[in-house]
Amino acid sequence: MSGSDEFEIDWDRTRRTGVAEAILCEPKTPAQIDAIVASAAGRRLLLTRLDEARHAALAATTRAALAYDPPSRTAVLGGPAPQVDVGADIGADMGADTGTAIGIVAAGTSDLPVAREAARTLAFHGYRAPIIADVGVAGLWRLTGRLPALRACRVLIAVAGMEGALFSVLAGLVEAPVIAVPSSVGYGVAAGGRTALRAALASCAPGLVVVNIDNGFGAAVAAIKMLRAMG
Amino acid sequence: MSGSDEFEIDWDRTRRTGVAEAILCEPKTPAQIDAIVASAAGRRLLLTRLDEARHAALAATTRAALAYDPPSRTAVLGGPAPQVDVGADIGADMGADTGTAIGIVAAGTSDLPVAREAARTLAFHGYRAPIIADVGVAGLWRLTGRLPALRACRVLIAVAGMEGALFSVLAGLVEAPVIAVPSSVGYGVAAGGRTALRAALASCAPGLVVVNIDNGFGAAVAAIKMLRAMG
Amino acid sequence: MSGSDEFEIDWDRTRRTGVAEAILCEPKTPAQIDAIVASAAGRRLLLTRLDEARHAALAATTRAALAYDPPSRTAVLGGPAPQVDVGADIGADMGADTGTAIGIVAAGTSDLPVAREAARTLAFHGYRAPIIADVGVAGLWRLTGRLPALRACRVLIAVAGMEGALFSVLAGLVEAPVIAVPSSVGYGVAAGGRTALRAALASCAPGLVVVNIDNGFGAAVAAIKMLRAMG
Amino acid sequence: MSGSDEFEIDWDRTRRTGVAEAILCEPKTPAQIDAIVASAAGRRLLLTRLDEARHAALAATTRAALAYDPPSRTAVLGGPAPQVDVGADIGADMGADTGTAIGIVAAGTSDLPVAREAARTLAFHGYRAPIIADVGVAGLWRLTGRLPALRACRVLIAVAGMEGALFSVLAGLVEAPVIAVPSSVGYGVAAGGRTALRAALASCAPGLVVVNIDNGFGAAVAAIKMLRAMG
Amino acid sequence: MSGSDEFEIDWDRTRRTGVAEAILCEPKTPAQIDAIVASAAGRRLLLTRLDEARHAALAATTRAALAYDPPSRTAVLGGPAPQVDVGADIGADMGADTGTAIGIVAAGTSDLPVAREAARTLAFHGYRAPIIADVGVAGLWRLTGRLPALRACRVLIAVAGMEGALFSVLAGLVEAPVIAVPSSVGYGVAAGGRTALRAALASCAPGLVVVNIDNGFGAAVAAIKMLRAMG
Amino acid sequence: MSGSDEFEIDWDRTRRTGVAEAILCEPKTPAQIDAIVASAAGRRLLLTRLDEARHAALAATTRAALAYDPPSRTAVLGGPAPQVDVGADIGADMGADTGTAIGIVAAGTSDLPVAREAARTLAFHGYRAPIIADVGVAGLWRLTGRLPALRACRVLIAVAGMEGALFSVLAGLVEAPVIAVPSSVGYGVAAGGRTALRAALASCAPGLVVVNIDNGFGAAVAAIKMLRAMG
Amino acid sequence: MSGSDEFEIDWDRTRRTGVAEAILCEPKTPAQIDAIVASAAGRRLLLTRLDEARHAALAATTRAALAYDPPSRTAVLGGPAPQVDVGADIGADMGADTGTAIGIVAAGTSDLPVAREAARTLAFHGYRAPIIADVGVAGLWRLTGRLPALRACRVLIAVAGMEGALFSVLAGLVEAPVIAVPSSVGYGVAAGGRTALRAALASCAPGLVVVNIDNGFGAAVAAIKMLRAMG
Amino acid sequence: MSGSDEFEIDWDRTRRTGVAEAILCEPKTPAQIDAIVASAAGRRLLLTRLDEARHAALAATTRAALAYDPPSRTAVLGGPAPQVDVGADIGADMGADTGTAIGIVAAGTSDLPVAREAARTLAFHGYRAPIIADVGVAGLWRLTGRLPALRACRVLIAVAGMEGALFSVLAGLVEAPVIAVPSSVGYGVAAGGRTALRAALASCAPGLVVVNIDNGFGAAVAAIKMLRAMG
Repeated sequence: MSGSDEFEIDWDRTRRTGVAEAILCEPKTPAQIDAIVASAAGRRLLLTRLDEARHAALAATTRAALAYDPPSRTAVLGGPAPQVDVGADIGADMGADTGTAIGIVAAGTSDLPVAREAARTLAFHGYRAPIIADVGVAGLWRLTGRLPALRACRVLIAVAGMEGALFSVLAGLVEAPVIAVPSSVGYGVAAGGRTALRAALASCAPGLVVVNIDNGFGAAVAAIKMLRAMG
Repeated sequence: MSGSDEFEIDWDRTRRTGVAEAILCEPKTPAQIDAIVASAAGRRLLLTRLDEARHAALAATTRAALAYDPPSRTAVLGGPAPQVDVGADIGADMGADTGTAIGIVAAGTSDLPVAREAARTLAFHGYRAPIIADVGVAGLWRLTGRLPALRACRVLIAVAGMEGALFSVLAGLVEAPVIAVPSSVGYGVAAGGRTALRAALASCAPGLVVVNIDNGFGAAVAAIKMLRAMG
Repeated sequence: MSGSDEFEIDWDRTRRTGVAEAILCEPKTPAQIDAIVASAAGRRLLLTRLDEARHAALAATTRAALAYDPPSRTAVLGGPAPQVDVGADIGADMGADTGTAIGIVAAGTSDLPVAREAARTLAFHGYRAPIIADVGVAGLWRLTGRLPALRACRVLIAVAGMEGALFSVLAGLVEAPVIAVPSSVGYGVAAGGRTALRAALASCAPGLVVVNIDNGFGAAVAAIKMLRAMG
Repeated sequence: MSGSDEFEIDWDRTRRTGVAEAILCEPKTPAQIDAIVASAAGRRLLLTRLDEARHAALAATTRAALAYDPPSRTAVLGGPAPQVDVGADIGADMGADTGTAIGIVAAGTSDLPVAREAARTLAFHGYRAPIIADVGVAGLWRLTGRLPALRACRVLIAVAGMEGALFSVLAGLVEAPVIAVPSSVGYGVAAGGRTALRAALASCAPGLVVVNIDNGFGAAVAAIKMLRAMG
Repeated sequence: MSGSDEFEIDWDRTRRTGVAEAILCEPKTPAQIDAIVASAAGRRLLLTRLDEARHAALAATTRAALAYDPPSRTAVLGGPAPQVDVGADIGADMGADTGTAIGIVAAGTSDLPVAREAARTLAFHGYRAPIIADVGVAGLWRLTGRLPALRACRVLIAVAGMEGALFSVLAGLVEAPVIAVPSSVGYGVAAGGRTALRAALASCAPGLVVVNIDNGFGAAVAAIKMLRAMG
Repeated sequence: MSGSDEFEIDWDRTRRTGVAEAILCEPKTPAQIDAIVASAAGRRLLLTRLDEARHAALAATTRAALAYDPPSRTAVLGGPAPQVDVGADIGADMGADTGTAIGIVAAGTSDLPVAREAARTLAFHGYRAPIIADVGVAGLWRLTGRLPALRACRVLIAVAGMEGALFSVLAGLVEAPVIAVPSSVGYGVAAGGRTALRAALASCAPGLVVVNIDNGFGAAVAAIKMLRAMG
Repeated sequence: MSGSDEFEIDWDRTRRTGVAEAILCEPKTPAQIDAIVASAAGRRLLLTRLDEARHAALAATTRAALAYDPPSRTAVLGGPAPQVDVGADIGADMGADTGTAIGIVAAGTSDLPVAREAARTLAFHGYRAPIIADVGVAGLWRLTGRLPALRACRVLIAVAGMEGALFSVLAGLVEAPVIAVPSSVGYGVAAGGRTALRAALASCAPGLVVVNIDNGFGAAVAAIKMLRAMG
Repeated sequence: MSGSDEFEIDWDRTRRTGVAEAILCEPKTPAQIDAIVASAAGRRLLLTRLDEARHAALAATTRAALAYDPPSRTAVLGGPAPQVDVGADIGADMGADTGTAIGIVAAGTSDLPVAREAARTLAFHGYRAPIIADVGVAGLWRLTGRLPALRACRVLIAVAGMEGALFSVLAGLVEAPVIAVPSSVGYGVAAGGRTALRAALASCAPGLVVVNIDNGFGAAVAAIKMLRAMG
């Protein structure tokens, strides 16, 4: 199975949808990924869900070409985009208030890999987005203490597993659209992220929108579409 | 099928478990309920999940003997117990602060029937428990504004449907044990109460305990057991 | 159970989140709805999931005060907002091209009630959004023939049941963010909308965001938040 | 447990149903597979779901007798059948147009193992079927650009995971019967292929028929039955 | 909501896919159905899942124009097609043997409504297909006694609920492709047809293809596509 | 659709399997049931799941011929069989001890309809089986007080809904085989009987065997097969 | 955690229920199993679900005391019981006909481990039961060719995965009670054995009884109870 | 990803909710756990779900600081609390009777890891709670023989997998509140603990409260809250 006949990268996607195609590595063989990277011919590419074992099995030339981030399982071919200054940072200790940033909120430290996937996807497209971690609702003050910074964001991405209560509480506190990313953090009835997903969809806070479990990449693309389309 | 041979009321349950047996009416025929009530012979009985149609189909003598409350679908034979003064009310506008009451919290007005089932079960056993309604987390101030009253309760029963985020937020704010009653309020992925149930079980707030969907009766019995056993 | 103690409308929500609170009527009794409407005191209210039977059971004064639309099961108290001209119509036969509208796309005629709920919610907040119906992907030309109009929208709401393939196809063709509303249209494995919901979440088209099944209201609120926050 | 008493190959199946029996290796021990192959006595056999670890554990004589293809996890005993020229290739760049081929369509490169299982099963029975890869609907032109070739096929097998939107779009574009093979490609709600399966079954495109998840073998047998029975 | 703007019949579908569009009535209002029928303008239409209550609510002129069959919930506008003599009947008491018919097999009398939907759909397109009823596998002789007739069919449609064992047994006995239609007949774990559906998909008899639960219409369309494409 | 061509009663089943065929009425039309009864021609028949509405819709002559029992939804054509004295009653107050009876145990009064379906099926085949009701495990003494009678039975049928704990407790106390019939009694997570079904299958008491939810008929047939086959 | 305080073997179970307690090894640590075996003190014990890795981790003295059978994952302490001659073998090539044996039927070779667990459990209790393998219904003659032998059995245990059609076909052909053991053989919708389980429960063949997935041990105990209780 | 910015321990939780925060290690990297432990600065910490592999991967200084218990997967930083003498032991062999202890009941030896997690959590907070093991209901005398000791407890924690019948039986026998912890012990339909969970929620014994599967930690926190709040 020679890799070269097996795929057709949608290089035109940026023009058509405003966002570049990314390569979902999880179900692909190392040989397929090598072939895809080789075909890029100078164009930039984002690779997602590339775990460390699969990364280690890539050809040395492929690995050398990629900027790989193990926690988020993402790799970038062609370097990050120049920073597009959507807005200042949320602040020094995430408390700045310029009102333009995309903010990423992670309920617990275990949600950080998914939050980083979102942040790396944003960076690939030229957006800098700080991550606010460990603001789960069982200690509500951790969240309410960040409200000025959170309210300054134009779009918020929230990552939470377990029961996903963060989504409803956050969406009830801010004007910005909130994109919920249920994470697969949890055990028992929370295992796999389905409880957090259902909680996000059933939220009593209207206007919350949801993406697939652990889909930090998709949330980032949605945030970009919101900012781009709104110009 | 003569009703009289078909059941054996566990009149001894109070002595053995501290709580009287109740009659779950939902799957019983009116004739069976009539027979059970006739067999009580002066003893008190609580009937649950007795909807209005089934209540209307009972014998006139049965209906006359029962104190029926349509919203909670409960009926009491033998009158409520004399008030046992576990503690003063949570207060005039539910804000009093004597620190002894069982409190019942309902996320929305649609959760009131289940909350009332809990309150009526408590009243049957001699406990007065106020209901604090419409404190869903999408408007967080409605909940945090009640914190002094809530923190004064020795046991809290919380009723919520949809995504059930109230359970986690509340349990993170108080010292008292919180009994979560998921309600079947909601549509789409929330239909039937399973999302709220899973959210309660997967909560990031430790120490939350859970009963079956819409089981206000069970939550009340659990609260009584906690108070009784602790003396 | 006097209605007046049972609810606490979050009148402050507009200021806090940019969108007014709406009343989900489905699980409420007519008496509760009457009391809520009576408490409005001149303020505007949107009521959702108010089916014809429940509407007919409201007090005559309540019914007289409401502008009710049976297909969408929505009612408005206080009249629609003056039209905010976000953009011209998508066009005469939905083909206009001014590039500013929110567009609503419905896969089949059976998806129209949900699409109308979204349109009525938008109108209540002052946004006019045309509905493009019957563009299911089994007849792909019905969708591709509308592409210029669809590409002119800043935000798209898509409603589809059954297998929900419309979501992926549409999101692959436009730059605007697409909000997927799975509908409960279908039978067998499609019954209840879960297949369309999962298809929307698992879409191969990145950036698609999703709300609960049949939740036209939530999709409209999300669209408003996107437009408002972006200014 | 001596292998020889444990199975009874249905050698008569070809005469009775028009298609030879195949050996599903997944739940069998290497010893059982060795025994089955040894019993073939010159007859041809197709082995499916024989992963590389199990293949490596077979007896050396068994391995020597088998033509093994790791990506599709299939092995053939007795060599491929002579080519039966059902029709010319779909064409040079898959665009030929002779109208007789079975065509296999794979939504993404990750669906290729299943597509290859179908192609190998067809080859075993004497049918040559080209695979058209990477035509997922998020880049619709990749599919519509192949329409002349696709419309020339008498039967189409389509393999797709994730949301499976390809099935509906393809079936709405061609006259030939389409056999949908949901693949287990995807994560979150798509994990395991159930979302693609339900999407295929709930499709708005009538006439689509479906086989089990990842069942490229079954799809190929169905295609053969269609061609054979129709003469 | 005037019906006329809400739908766009795909009159071109016959040319494009070989099978005419049908109207799925279940989720449509009577007014929508009236408008669709009025728009036909002399063209023929098949309506499916039109239950008796909805049929009775149609305009009198609509009802007069339709040939309605209550058990199958189908109606035809424009009369049945002239008989296309695909093959003689399966025989006097369904036992004839000319080898050309499409055969429909129903496991029990309760599966007849779905079988009739398939037969009516076939008749609409000009194919006559006899129904063989009550051949469930618990009395195997009822099925094996029909084998000559069944083996004479070029395509078989099988309808079964409960555990759906008929699908596997039948597909193991004949050369023709078998299209399985799981029916929603059954109770307990069989309720809703999901057990029969899964049994069809998991069948040990290779080559079986499956459509949605109760989808006699889809099975008929698939059978027509097989016959048409094969010429 | 004339009823007479649509079914083929398996009159031979008694000879082949030791138990007569029964007619599952639930999904059949009254006309189909009338035709089946008319075809009996003096032979005896058992009809199950014939609810009162469907019974009332049968032809007068059919109703006159049937001995109908509303609680169990069963009807018998041809009268009950003469009593076959498998063993004496379990006793006066269900406490006799001759060691030969089939015993039926029902956890609560709400399980009686299913228990009666089993008893009526046994009576149709000539077996008398007493029902012991209201022995749920929450009042363990109700069960242990009956142990001598229960231990005297050669086969036990147990009917329970909710959490189905009765099955495990009973099977751990007796030597006889226990057939568990999960009932659909319960609400919330118990709704529909699936929790009781899973509990029966997962029981820690070995040797418990299980039938479908509410399937009192099937349990009775299994009990008869055990007694008959064992002579 | 010293093993000795952690368990209390139910040595009395044989007297109470007619069948000895067995040790389910799967979730136990090797140290726990060593302690249990050491506590036996000359009594016989059956160990189930003892996989090869856990067996290898037991103490050498434990391993020396056990008669271990890897395919069935069972081990016997104290040797098999003397043969109790329930009946002759089903016959030379499994065709003997003395009418007394327990017969075990396995649909495919992959079902043999579960069938062997049943056979080993029976042997432990003194019953010899032959296994008839590879009689799946896709090749019906493999089953019908064995009918004389199968009809000679007093109790039948049937093991099948995938769609489990064997259960219904077999139960419709014999008088003996049939105990269905769904196996976890299969992939896609069959993965894990739930489809076979549901098929067994929903069977159209009355009198079939069912045990948990892969529970050959439980089926054997049920068969023994049937034979013992019936004397 | 430097650990130090990623988390914010809720050191204030003890004051606010009466119970200290614990660290759920399962989804955290060893580096994150090292950083959290390093940040404790003399404060005590409980770590849960720390499996042996992850424990082994911690920094040597971290491991030296922790008191680790492999079976329960818990570790304590800062040593156990001084014993708070809630009550004497349940007794010599767990049978003492002073009426003040928290008791932990485990249905089988396989449930001990979860029971130990509860006991270790209690010890961390200063409560000594004995574990009563192997009291599954299939041997009812093992449970009833402990009744005096069990009835002496003020709060009971019960751990059971499989069908979870222990919960209902125990709750029907004692006055104390019972906290059910479903364990993931079991296979087939019991796999993962969902059957035991549903059984606990659907219990016929009123007043039972439930926590997530395998959540011994949560049950212990709930028990502490009950004792603390009650004074």
